[in-house]
Amino acid sequence: LSGDLLFDQVVTTEELLEATGDQAWLQAMLQAEAALSRACASAGLVPPEAARQITAVAEHAVFDAAELGRQARGGGNPVIPLVKALSDAVGPPCSQWVHMGATSQDILDTAMVLVSRKAGAIVDREAGRLARACADQARQHRDTVMPARTLLQPALPTTFGLKAVTWMVGVCEARRDLKVALESLSSQLGGAAGTLASLGDHGPAVAAAFAAELRLDEPVLPWHAARQRTARLATSLALVASTAAKIAFDIALLMQAEVAEATEPFAEGRGASSTMPQKRNPVAAAAVGAASRRAGALACLMMGSVVGEHERHLASWPTEWQTLGDLLALAGGAVSRSAETVEGLEVHADTMAANVTRFAGSLLAERVSSALTPALGRLRAAELVGRACRLAPDTGAAALIETLMSQQEVAEQISEQELRRLLDPTGYLGCAQHLVDKALAWFEGESS
Amino acid sequence: LSGDLLFDQVVTTEELLEATGDQAWLQAMLQAEAALSRACASAGLVPPEAARQITAVAEHAVFDAAELGRQARGGGNPVIPLVKALSDAVGPPCSQWVHMGATSQDILDTAMVLVSRKAGAIVDREAGRLARACADQARQHRDTVMPARTLLQPALPTTFGLKAVTWMVGVCEARRDLKVALESLSSQLGGAAGTLASLGDHGPAVAAAFAAELRLDEPVLPWHAARQRTARLATSLALVASTAAKIAFDIALLMQAEVAEATEPFAEGRGASSTMPQKRNPVAAAAVGAASRRAGALACLMMGSVVGEHERHLASWPTEWQTLGDLLALAGGAVSRSAETVEGLEVHADTMAANVTRFAGSLLAERVSSALTPALGRLRAAELVGRACRLAPDTGAAALIETLMSQQEVAEQISEQELRRLLDPTGYLGCAQHLVDKALAWFEGESS
Amino acid sequence: LSGDLLFDQVVTTEELLEATGDQAWLQAMLQAEAALSRACASAGLVPPEAARQITAVAEHAVFDAAELGRQARGGGNPVIPLVKALSDAVGPPCSQWVHMGATSQDILDTAMVLVSRKAGAIVDREAGRLARACADQARQHRDTVMPARTLLQPALPTTFGLKAVTWMVGVCEARRDLKVALESLSSQLGGAAGTLASLGDHGPAVAAAFAAELRLDEPVLPWHAARQRTARLATSLALVASTAAKIAFDIALLMQAEVAEATEPFAEGRGASSTMPQKRNPVAAAAVGAASRRAGALACLMMGSVVGEHERHLASWPTEWQTLGDLLALAGGAVSRSAETVEGLEVHADTMAANVTRFAGSLLAERVSSALTPALGRLRAAELVGRACRLAPDTGAAALIETLMSQQEVAEQISEQELRRLLDPTGYLGCAQHLVDKALAWFEGESS
Amino acid sequence: LSGDLLFDQVVTTEELLEATGDQAWLQAMLQAEAALSRACASAGLVPPEAARQITAVAEHAVFDAAELGRQARGGGNPVIPLVKALSDAVGPPCSQWVHMGATSQDILDTAMVLVSRKAGAIVDREAGRLARACADQARQHRDTVMPARTLLQPALPTTFGLKAVTWMVGVCEARRDLKVALESLSSQLGGAAGTLASLGDHGPAVAAAFAAELRLDEPVLPWHAARQRTARLATSLALVASTAAKIAFDIALLMQAEVAEATEPFAEGRGASSTMPQKRNPVAAAAVGAASRRAGALACLMMGSVVGEHERHLASWPTEWQTLGDLLALAGGAVSRSAETVEGLEVHADTMAANVTRFAGSLLAERVSSALTPALGRLRAAELVGRACRLAPDTGAAALIETLMSQQEVAEQISEQELRRLLDPTGYLGCAQHLVDKALAWFEGESS
Repeated sequence: LSGDLLFDQVVTTEELLEATGDQAWLQAMLQAEAALSRACASAGLVPPEAARQITAVAEHAVFDAAELGRQARGGGNPVIPLVKALSDAVGPPCSQWVHMGATSQDILDTAMVLVSRKAGAIVDREAGRLARACADQARQHRDTVMPARTLLQPALPTTFGLKAVTWMVGVCEARRDLKVALESLSSQLGGAAGTLASLGDHGPAVAAAFAAELRLDEPVLPWHAARQRTARLATSLALVASTAAKIAFDIALLMQAEVAEATEPFAEGRGASSTMPQKRNPVAAAAVGAASRRAGALACLMMGSVVGEHERHLASWPTEWQTLGDLLALAGGAVSRSAETVEGLEVHADTMAANVTRFAGSLLAERVSSALTPALGRLRAAELVGRACRLAPDTGAAALIETLMSQQEVAEQISEQELRRLLDPTGYLGCAQHLVDKALAWFEGESS
Repeated sequence: LSGDLLFDQVVTTEELLEATGDQAWLQAMLQAEAALSRACASAGLVPPEAARQITAVAEHAVFDAAELGRQARGGGNPVIPLVKALSDAVGPPCSQWVHMGATSQDILDTAMVLVSRKAGAIVDREAGRLARACADQARQHRDTVMPARTLLQPALPTTFGLKAVTWMVGVCEARRDLKVALESLSSQLGGAAGTLASLGDHGPAVAAAFAAELRLDEPVLPWHAARQRTARLATSLALVASTAAKIAFDIALLMQAEVAEATEPFAEGRGASSTMPQKRNPVAAAAVGAASRRAGALACLMMGSVVGEHERHLASWPTEWQTLGDLLALAGGAVSRSAETVEGLEVHADTMAANVTRFAGSLLAERVSSALTPALGRLRAAELVGRACRLAPDTGAAALIETLMSQQEVAEQISEQELRRLLDPTGYLGCAQHLVDKALAWFEGESS
Repeated sequence: LSGDLLFDQVVTTEELLEATGDQAWLQAMLQAEAALSRACASAGLVPPEAARQITAVAEHAVFDAAELGRQARGGGNPVIPLVKALSDAVGPPCSQWVHMGATSQDILDTAMVLVSRKAGAIVDREAGRLARACADQARQHRDTVMPARTLLQPALPTTFGLKAVTWMVGVCEARRDLKVALESLSSQLGGAAGTLASLGDHGPAVAAAFAAELRLDEPVLPWHAARQRTARLATSLALVASTAAKIAFDIALLMQAEVAEATEPFAEGRGASSTMPQKRNPVAAAAVGAASRRAGALACLMMGSVVGEHERHLASWPTEWQTLGDLLALAGGAVSRSAETVEGLEVHADTMAANVTRFAGSLLAERVSSALTPALGRLRAAELVGRACRLAPDTGAAALIETLMSQQEVAEQISEQELRRLLDPTGYLGCAQHLVDKALAWFEGESS
Repeated sequence: LSGDLLFDQVVTTEELLEATGDQAWLQAMLQAEAALSRACASAGLVPPEAARQITAVAEHAVFDAAELGRQARGGGNPVIPLVKALSDAVGPPCSQWVHMGATSQDILDTAMVLVSRKAGAIVDREAGRLARACADQARQHRDTVMPARTLLQPALPTTFGLKAVTWMVGVCEARRDLKVALESLSSQLGGAAGTLASLGDHGPAVAAAFAAELRLDEPVLPWHAARQRTARLATSLALVASTAAKIAFDIALLMQAEVAEATEPFAEGRGASSTMPQKRNPVAAAAVGAASRRAGALACLMMGSVVGEHERHLASWPTEWQTLGDLLALAGGAVSRSAETVEGLEVHADTMAANVTRFAGSLLAERVSSALTPALGRLRAAELVGRACRLAPDTGAAALIETLMSQQEVAEQISEQELRRLLDPTGYLGCAQHLVDKALAWFEGESS
C-alpha cells in the first residue's frame, strides 16, 4: 500500500518489486487484452488487422498507473479505465474490437496468473538457491559437531551438517509445493458470468486460443468464483517465506554473542546500529522474519477469499489483487535474503566445539543415563543423573563425572574411565552423519 | 507494498495515501530528529544554533525515499541512512549534534506515533462523518417500515431508522475506542537500550523536552519492547474498518435486485461493468469489504508483535512499520467510503413497504403465534402457525389468514378480523421508533 | 478447548469428534509406543516378549485423559506422564523397554500423523460425497435456467448445472490437494535431538521398522523442527472447509425469501427459531460458515509454527496439537454438512425461471448492447442500453423493449421483433451446458 | 473443540476450564432465562409464581450438555433445545412463560456476557498477580546489572529491575484495556429482531428489569448485529495473552544455558524431558507462548464477526461462541502461568554480572565512542571503536582497551585510565534505576 519504497526494500528485492509492481500488472493486463484480440481473430470474430493493432498498442503504449487507479474507484477495478484507455490509444475503427467477449475479471485474473508465473519463477529460483546453499553448508560441515538445542536448552551433540540438511529438506518441500501451485494456474476467460455467452458458439474455441496465446493451460471451467488455486498459491508462498524464516531465526539465535556459533555474512555497514559501534545485528533474520510474518497474514486473507457470493465475489475478489502481489514479493524477498545469508554464513566451528565441551555434561546426560539403565532401571538412572546434573558445579564433563562418582549407587555400577568415554561428544552423534549423506543424496536426486 | 497506485485508490483516499506514504514517514522522522536536537539544546547538550540549523534542514530538505530504502537494507531500518543524509545536509560542525542520545527505534517509533496521530485524525474525522450520516438517515427514516432479516430470512417488521441507529452506535463505539488508542500514544526516547545512558544525567529532562516539543505525552517508560499501545491502535483501526464494512455489506444485500430496498449513491460510471450496460454494482461495498478484510489481517500482525526478544524485537518490530501505515490508510478508506455511501444512500421506502406486504405472513407469524399461545400453549401455537406458513401458497397476509382459518383448532380461537389486525405490520414494530429516539438522543449527548 | 460438547456438535459430526478427541490421541500415542517396542525388538534391542507385552497393554489399557492432562503441565506435554502410566501398567521387568530411543515429540508427532490419517480419511470421504452430490445436481439441472449474479447483481442467464459443476470442480481440487498433503505425512523418529543417538548403530533400522509397523512412509529426515508438511496439511484442511463454505453461502443467498431459488433440505425442527414459527433458517450454511472461518484462523497458526527454535520449537510445537485436531474436525464437519445439504437440496426451478423472466431486461442487456455495437460502436451501444435499463419501469423484457424502442437512435437500428428474440434468456446461455458436460466428463475421469 | 482435557491443561487452569466449559455456559443461559422470567413478572406479563418456579428450576436442574449439543444441530444453536428442556422441567402451566419475549440470541449473548464477566474476572485477577510479581522482582533487582540486548545482541548495560518494570507497565496497560472491555459488556434483549415487539409496550421496562436482575448495564440498543464490544473484548484478551507471552519468551531466552541469567521456578518433574535427565525446559514459556498464539488467531476471528448480515449474522455469530470461551481460557492461562513463573523466578544476578563483564567491551562501545566524539567527530569515533570491537580478541573490557590503545588516533585522545573508567558498566546505567523508581511509583498510584 501507499507507494512504499522506504520500507519495502528492507524485506524484498528490486527485481521482485518490479515484477509485482503497478507496471507489471498493467503490462500483464495489456498482454491479456492483446491475446484476447488474437484469440478472437483466430475464431474469425475480429479482423486480423485489428488484433495486430491492438497487440501493437498493448505492447508499446504507456499508461499512467496512478491515473488509472484514480479512475478505478468508479467501477471498482482498474480494467474498466484500462479498456477505455486502450481503446482510445487504438482508436477507431479497431478500438471496437478491444475486450471482446471478456469481463473485467477475465483480464484481471489472467493478469494475476501472468504476474504470479513471472514473479513466482523468481521466488522458485531463489528458493533453489537457498536449498543449494544449505546443501553446500551441509557438505562442508558434515562432521562439525555442535550442541543440538531443544526448547532452547542443550539437548545432545549434533552436527551443523544435520541442521543444514534439515533446513534444506524443508526448502525443497516448500519449493515443490510452490511449483505445483504455480503450474496449476490457468487462464481465465468466462465472459460476464462464466458462460462465454457474448462469444456465441465460438466461446470454447476462443477460450482455448486465448490460453494458447498466453502459453497457459486452459481450466476445466472458468474460475471467477472458484478461488481454490489462487488460495493454494498464496499458502505455498507463505510456506516458502516461513521456511526461509525458520532458517533465518535459527541463525539469529546462533549469532547471539553468548552462543556465537555463526554470523550473518559481513559487509561494510551491514548489521550496523545508529548509535552502537560494536553492533553486527542479524538484520537479514529480522527482515526475513518480518517478510514471513506478513506473508502468513496475507495467505490467510487469500484463503478467506474462497468464500464469496455467487458468480463473482463482492469484497473478497478485490482483496486478492494486492495481497497476492505482496505475497510474491515477500516470499521472494524472504528466500532471496536467506539464500544470501546461508551462502555467506560464517560458521564458527571452533565455538561450536567449545560450546559442546562447555555443555558436555548436559549434552551427554542421556547417554550416561542409558548406560546405567540396565543396572538401575530407566527411571532410577534418569533420576540419579538428573540430580547429578543439577548438583554439578558446571555443565562440563569433568564436573559431572566427579559428581556422579561421589554417588555410591552410581560408582558401584560404572568406572570413571567408562564415564569419561561416555562423555565424549563425538561418540554420541548417532546417525547425524548418515542422515546428512542420505539427505544430500536425496537432494541430488530431486535436483537432477 | 511495491508502490501500488493501481489498486490502492480503490480502497482508500488520496489524502490517506499521502498521510501514510513514504514522504509522510520521512517528514515525521525528520520532525523527531529536529525535536530531539531542540530538546538536547534545552538541556544544554547541544548548542542552540545547532538545534536551529538541524531543525531548519529537517523542515526543508528533500530526501529520496527510494534511495534511503535501498540503503536501509544494510542496517535493517531507514533511520541509519536518514541520519547520515541529514548529517550531510546539515554539514559540519553542527552535523555532530544530529541524532544525539537516540537510537533508530526512538526516531522510527516517534515517527510512527506522529504518522498515526495525523492519519488517525483523518480516520476519526471520517468515522464522525459516517456516524452523522447514519444519524441523519435514522432521523429521516424513523418510521420507514421494512423487513428485519435474521440469518438472511424475513423475521419481523422493523424500521430503516432502527437499522441506521444500530449502525450509528457501532460506529460511535469503534470511534471512541480509536480515540482512546490514539490518545494513549506517546513519544519514544530511550537511547540504545531504553536507559537513556548516552545522555548522562540529562536523560529525563531531554525525554520530557522531546515529548513537549512534539506535543506528545511522555510515557511512563520507553516502550521499545512494550508494544501494547501500538497493538491496541491496530485493533482499533481494524474495528473501525470492520464497522464500516458491516454497514457496506448490509447495503450490498439491500441492493440485490430481488430486494431493491436501497442503492449506493449514483454517479456517472459508478458501479459500471466493463461489459454489462445494466450494471450498477455495489462497488463501495466491495471496496470497503476488501479494506476491512485486509485491516483485520494486519491487526493480527500487530498483535503478534507484542511478543519479541528482550530490549528490541528482532522480526516483529520491522513487521510493524508498513503494517500500521497500511492499517491507517485502509481503516480511513473504509469509513470514508462508507460515509459517502450512507450520506448519498438511495433508500427505497416504497420497495421496503412492498416487501413488508409481500412477506407479511412470515413477518407476523410470531405475533399470530403469541396471540394463540394463551389458548393453545406456546409450542402448539408455534406448531400450527409454522405449519400454516409452510402450507400457505405465498408469504403474504391473505394467504396465511386463509390457511389458518381453514384449520379448525385455530379458527375456534381467533376471528378472521382479529387475524387481519394482527397481520398489519405497522402494528408490530415494538419499540423500534422508541429505540431510534433513544439512540439519537444518546448520540447527541455523545457528540456535544 | 474446554470439553465443548454444547457447541461442537453444531459444526462437526460425532464421528469426527471421536476421531479427533482425547481418546483418539491417547490411542494413537499408545500405538506409536507399541510400534516402537516392536521395531526395537526387530533390531534386537528389546526382547520380543517385552514388545509383545507392551503392545498388549497399549492396546487394552485405558488411561484417564483428564489426569494425564493435569500431569502434562510439568513437562509440557502429555507423553511424559503417559510413558510413566504405560510403564506402570506394563510393570517390571518389561517396563524398562518402554519408550526406548524415543523423545516425547517422536510419539506425539507420530500420533498426530495417525490421527490425521484416520480423521483425514473421513474428511476425504465426505468431500468425495460432496463432489458427487454437486455432480448429481449438475446432471439433473444441466438445463435449468437461472440468473447468474456478479457482485450480488443480476448479470446474465446461466444454468444451475453450471453453478453446481463450478462448486464440484472446486471440491475436487481441494480434495486432491488434501490427498497430497495426507500422503506426504510420515512417521517421526529421531530421538532426543533428531540423531537417533540412543539407538547406537541401530537407529536407521529401528526408524525404518517403526515406519513399517505403522504402515507409514519413512521421512528423508526426522522433522521435529521441519514443520512444512503439517502446515501444508492444515492449509489443505482449511481449503476444504472454505470450499464447503462457498457452496453453503451460495445456498444461503439463494434461500433468501426474496430470491427463493433453493432451500436446504427439510427435516422436522430444522432451521427453526426459538420464537418465530415461520422460520426455516439456512442453519447448515451458518454452521459450515462458522467451521470454515475457524479453520482458516487455525491454518494460519499452523503456518506460523514452521518458524521456531533450533531442534525443537518452544511455543509453536505445543500450538500445533489441538489446532490440528480441531482443523480436522472442522473441515470434516464443513464438508459433511455441505454434502448433506447439496444431496437434499430443494432446487426451485420454477422460481429460477420466474426470476429470469423478472430480470430479463437486466440479464440480457449485454446481449442487446452487443447486437447494437456494429452499428453504434461499443461504448455508445452500452450507453444507450444502460440508460434504457435505468429508465425502464421494471427489469423485465417488455419494459426494456418499450424503453429502447422509444429511443430513435436504437429504433433505427433494430426491430422490436429482433429485440424480443434477443431478450429470450434461453437463447443466451453461451456454453453453459457445454461446460457442464465437459466438467462432468472430467469428473468421471477424475473419479475413476 | 472435542472435549480436550489432554492438551488444555497444559495451557490453562482448571478454574478457567470450569469457568468457560459447557456447564458454565448452560448455567449462564439458565440464569438469563430465569432473569427474563422475573423481569417479565415485574412488568406484569408473567405471574410471579411462574417466575419463581422457572428461577428455581433454572438454578437446580441439571441438563446434559452433550445431548443438548446434539439437538442444537437442527436449529443451529443450543438455546432452542435448552428452552424445550427447561419448559419440560418446569412443566405446565408455568412452562408457557419460559423464554417470553426473547430470541435465542438474547439468551446466548447474555450468557456470553455472564461467562465473560466471570471468567474475565479471573483473567483480571491473574493479570494483577502478574503485574505485582513483576513489581516485586523490580523492587528486588532495582540495581542488578545485566546486559541489555537488542536484536538479540548485547547493547548496553541495564538492570533487571528495568526489564521487570517494562514487563509490569505492559501488563498494567493490557489489564486496564481488558477492564474497559469487560465493563462495556451489557445485557442483550431485543426479541426476534431487536424491536422487542412481542413484549408490546412493556419492551423497555422488561429490558431494563432484565439488565437489573443480572446486574448488567443496559445497552443503548440491542446489539444482535453490532458486535463491536465482543470483538473489543477478544482483542483485549489476546493483548493480555501476548503480554504474558512477551515476558515468558524473554525468560526462555534468559534461561538458555549459554545465557543462564534466570530460570523458571523449580518443582519436581518440572521442565523434565521423557529421555534427557539433565533437562529443565522452559515449559511455562512454551505453554504461555502457545496460549498467546492461539489467542491471537481467535481474536482475529472475533474481529471478523463484526461484519455480518442484517439483523442477525449467519456464519459469524456461531463463530463467536466457542471462540470467546477459548479466548478467556487461553488469556487466563497465559497470565496465570506467567504470574507463577515471575513470582518464583530464579534470577541469577551473579551470571548477569559475569555476562556484563564478559561483554563489557561490546556493552560500553557506545560510551567510548561518545567520549571520542568531541575530538574525532561522531562518525569517525564510531568507525574506530567499531573496528576495535571487531579486532579485539574477545568482548571483554581489557581486550577492547588494548586494541583501542594500539590505534594512535585513539591513543592521542584518551588515556588508558579514562578508558578503564568508561568501561565500567555500573557507570553507564543511564536512568535505569530512576525509571524503575518512577514506574514503581506509577504502579502504586495505579493500584491504589
